[in-house]
Amino acid sequence: MTAYEPAIAAFRAEGALRYGVLTGDDLVDVTDNLEARFSNLLDVVAADALPDLVKAGEGRPVSYRAADVAFQIPIAAPQKIICVGVNYPDRNAEYKDGQAQQMRPSLFPRFASGFTGHGQPLIRPPESDQLDYEGEIAIVIGKAGRRIPRETAFDHIAAITLCNEGTIRDWTRHAKFNVTQGKNWERTGSIGPALVPLHSPAQLQDVALVTRVNGEVRQQDRTSRMIFDFPYIVNYVSTFAQLMPGDILVCGTPTGAGARMEPPCWLKPGDIVEVEAEGIGILRNGIEDEKC
Amino acid sequence: MTAYEPAIAAFRAEGALRYGVLTGDDLVDVTDNLEARFSNLLDVVAADALPDLVKAGEGRPVSYRAADVAFQIPIAAPQKIICVGVNYPDRNAEYKDGQAQQMRPSLFPRFASGFTGHGQPLIRPPESDQLDYEGEIAIVIGKAGRRIPRETAFDHIAAITLCNEGTIRDWTRHAKFNVTQGKNWERTGSIGPALVPLHSPAQLQDVALVTRVNGEVRQQDRTSRMIFDFPYIVNYVSTFAQLMPGDILVCGTPTGAGARMEPPCWLKPGDIVEVEAEGIGILRNGIEDEKC
Repeated sequence: MTAYEPAIAAFRAEGALRYGVLTGDDLVDVTDNLEARFSNLLDVVAADALPDLVKAGEGRPVSYRAADVAFQIPIAAPQKIICVGVNYPDRNAEYKDGQAQQMRPSLFPRFASGFTGHGQPLIRPPESDQLDYEGEIAIVIGKAGRRIPRETAFDHIAAITLCNEGTIRDWTRHAKFNVTQGKNWERTGSIGPALVPLHSPAQLQDVALVTRVNGEVRQQDRTSRMIFDFPYIVNYVSTFAQLMPGDILVCGTPTGAGARMEPPCWLKPGDIVEVEAEGIGILRNGIEDEKC
Repeated sequence: MTAYEPAIAAFRAEGALRYGVLTGDDLVDVTDNLEARFSNLLDVVAADALPDLVKAGEGRPVSYRAADVAFQIPIAAPQKIICVGVNYPDRNAEYKDGQAQQMRPSLFPRFASGFTGHGQPLIRPPESDQLDYEGEIAIVIGKAGRRIPRETAFDHIAAITLCNEGTIRDWTRHAKFNVTQGKNWERTGSIGPALVPLHSPAQLQDVALVTRVNGEVRQQDRTSRMIFDFPYIVNYVSTFAQLMPGDILVCGTPTGAGARMEPPCWLKPGDIVEVEAEGIGILRNGIEDEKC
């Protein structure tokens, strides 16, 4: 895959929350620059200032190695995280429920507490052994809007990041409708590693997305094959809800989640899951059992 | 119905956000008392200080009539609003989909932007004429907790309020799973009028809940008939998600929404919807077409 563009990360190091420009495995600290003007990355995307932070890091020495810091979710408290279900070819057929592909996307909210940062463990709770991965590309809203036309949708996207939309699979089927309880376990998913500033629609238009478990490719597709593309998602969601700076739209996963293997193959302690997208980065997480 | 207990309201009057003790139609301003210790009602419920505010209003003169102020959602920015679907007898049968009642509740999140305060208009968007009411009782979490036992669930509830869980009905069926897009239109629902401090489980155990449209009773049931009772809901939700102060759990609606009438009867400008619960209060809203 191609080299990654510089991206802005939130992380803890030396006992403090810090911000840096992530390029490959190198982090250049720009905390001073951010904190002079903003209180967090949500404020930065609202001000369309991610590119300024990238510039602020130019010419500075490397401050940390990525492996030595604790990555945080880039936007700690977004007003909304909305996930798109069933958005790559053959994903509907995987459900084997005889239903035709719907004309509009399935959407479900997730709370920020369901996610952890890059490099942190996903947590398998004692109530289920069905922790599953879903590798996805997420977009972060910069400019607020309602009923955003598809033609101007990219103007409202400040950044791209990755999501492992980790799921407790059996709990998605507890109820008559809705997957809420399988999708909102504490720290079962991850977002990151960092925010890649969006400067061109080409950064999203035909991107290879792959998920690996212990190095083995499990999911692999390209964004050009998405059923509902990024401008459509922005337009559709903003029809009913005002999109706000920092809102995160998680745009669907390819076929090949562990639930679809025969027999199903769930994540367990010791496994390493990587979600990688061309030009965007790698989001890597281990698995730990919850300490109750 | 019985007289209402004093409750704490957030409202705008004289150009400012204010707080008061609501008793019937009388509001006693306690903004000074609240602002001396807290920044908003979320902080108050987190400190278990609602009863202190009620006491602070005792002996003070009435400051405003309820009709003269603009009520706000009591908790402006809860971390989570989670709604319970299909929780009163015969509600499952209304769906006529041949499915048996599930063993566990259907849950769906709503964003705060989907709600307005008591007395404010619900907004009918131009995309649909299927704006529908759902009268519900909501509980507000005071004390954080995970895997809260049913036996101690009431210790985690700071307050009771009402919700008109207003829905754009046709948009709940856009997708293969999940009702997200029908449940999250801006200002299609309401929460309030105020927070009734919980001091006894008896305040929730056999409460009459009624919804009226233009004075006509459309929904009517009692909380003693709920399929999943309040302690169960607190226990079940907290199994997967840490409940936090200010989180709102909206606990289900009786039969009789407008969608279930033959022919369906949707809300339209000029209608008045009232959700009333014994001892808790009346939540009243008109309807307006969105000005696009």
